[in-house]
Amino acid sequence: MRKLLIIGIGAGDPDHMTVQAIKALNRADVVFLPDKGQEKAALRHLREQICARFIEKPYRTVTVETPQRAEAGSDYRGVVDDWHARIAANYARLFTAELAEGEHGALLVWGDPALYDSTLRIVERVRAGGLALDWEVIPGISSVQVLAARHRIPLNRIGEPILITTGRKLAAGFPAGQDSVVVMLDGEQAFAQIAPEDLEIFWGAYLGTADEILIAGRLSEVAGEIERVRAQAREKHGWIMDTYLLRRMQA
Amino acid sequence: MRKLLIIGIGAGDPDHMTVQAIKALNRADVVFLPDKGQEKAALRHLREQICARFIEKPYRTVTVETPQRAEAGSDYRGVVDDWHARIAANYARLFTAELAEGEHGALLVWGDPALYDSTLRIVERVRAGGLALDWEVIPGISSVQVLAARHRIPLNRIGEPILITTGRKLAAGFPAGQDSVVVMLDGEQAFAQIAPEDLEIFWGAYLGTADEILIAGRLSEVAGEIERVRAQAREKHGWIMDTYLLRRMQA
Repeated sequence: MRKLLIIGIGAGDPDHMTVQAIKALNRADVVFLPDKGQEKAALRHLREQICARFIEKPYRTVTVETPQRAEAGSDYRGVVDDWHARIAANYARLFTAELAEGEHGALLVWGDPALYDSTLRIVERVRAGGLALDWEVIPGISSVQVLAARHRIPLNRIGEPILITTGRKLAAGFPAGQDSVVVMLDGEQAFAQIAPEDLEIFWGAYLGTADEILIAGRLSEVAGEIERVRAQAREKHGWIMDTYLLRRMQA
Repeated sequence: MRKLLIIGIGAGDPDHMTVQAIKALNRADVVFLPDKGQEKAALRHLREQICARFIEKPYRTVTVETPQRAEAGSDYRGVVDDWHARIAANYARLFTAELAEGEHGALLVWGDPALYDSTLRIVERVRAGGLALDWEVIPGISSVQVLAARHRIPLNRIGEPILITTGRKLAAGFPAGQDSVVVMLDGEQAFAQIAPEDLEIFWGAYLGTADEILIAGRLSEVAGEIERVRAQAREKHGWIMDTYLLRRMQA
């Protein structure tokens, strides 16, 4: 049987690699590297750096062309589902062609494979499509954890919950009854659209990299600054990845 | 100024250590090791293993007696607050006595320092108490991530939020409007107290260690089994640490 190693590689700093992830990388015969086009060239470069630095044996690399996702519009799940189907078909073809029976293939996932990443769903689809396939998951440091570490804050208040959600969901307003809300996948700066009263924000972009930017403060006071800094950075780098914690200020 | 390195050391497997955490450990002049008594002897042993395996220079160790927390009763935050004050006073005394100006002290935190851990709040208190102190936070693999990795599942549904909460909160019922709920710090098996309909559970104990136990299934079908296995394991080892994901089953 073919075996996949789905490896969390951390959030931008190669030093986020765990010993477990390094060992897993060194069990791989083939490393599958996605090519997401120009926007993520910096990320592709980081993946290659990680392989070059940590793999101490011969290995092959296979470039995976990632199909473009259609604009989501109102049918977000339908569009994602269709996109995953096309990615899975592509992977099924590549695993069959490039990975011999008994060999190990590595998929390198930014952050943690359990958090807003589709790799696990896609390999599940590949197996459901009929390819005999086993896999192992290696957790990695997520951008949420780096955000908290760099701001030197806990994500939760004592004994209180944390909600991790998306910019798309936050756009409907700060979730009722919540105290600490982490927002991921926000391309639309939803933090600037909601009522800011009594909220503080801890924001970070390019976390873990040399380009890291951190801004924190009362949302009412820093939302504009974050929008400005974010737009400038995006312009300069050609892409941006950011995440943030919103929480109610304590009396 | 004295400097602290607050290092996430992962969830039980020394291989969860990141390269960043290993480097931080090797900058420490003093490693502060809590002594929580017999219940957590296994965890203390693991900390010592991590130091012995990863630190490649001379260092001193200082044992920190952890005061007992009073029973929480109805005033959970008040009791925790008082407990933290006593821990902070103890740390302030030890940092002053055992750490020279300009030296680095390491505090090793299970899992991730940002997730249901009090170390950051305690050092904040020590500084508020008047000791000139700086610190750096190094994220670590949390038990939640290991839970998901070992069950080979994402924590979230596509585009949907994740709520991370406590057993104490869950006891009031599965949170309204939520789909995926991770439960930590549950000493009372709250999963067995709530209405199980349409919920599935992914449970894990001693995650990342040789004693790891995983159970997954419909909550209505496996809740009793988890209670039984959990009680047996706790009896056998003298302590248990477990966590789980509850989520609504999809049609």
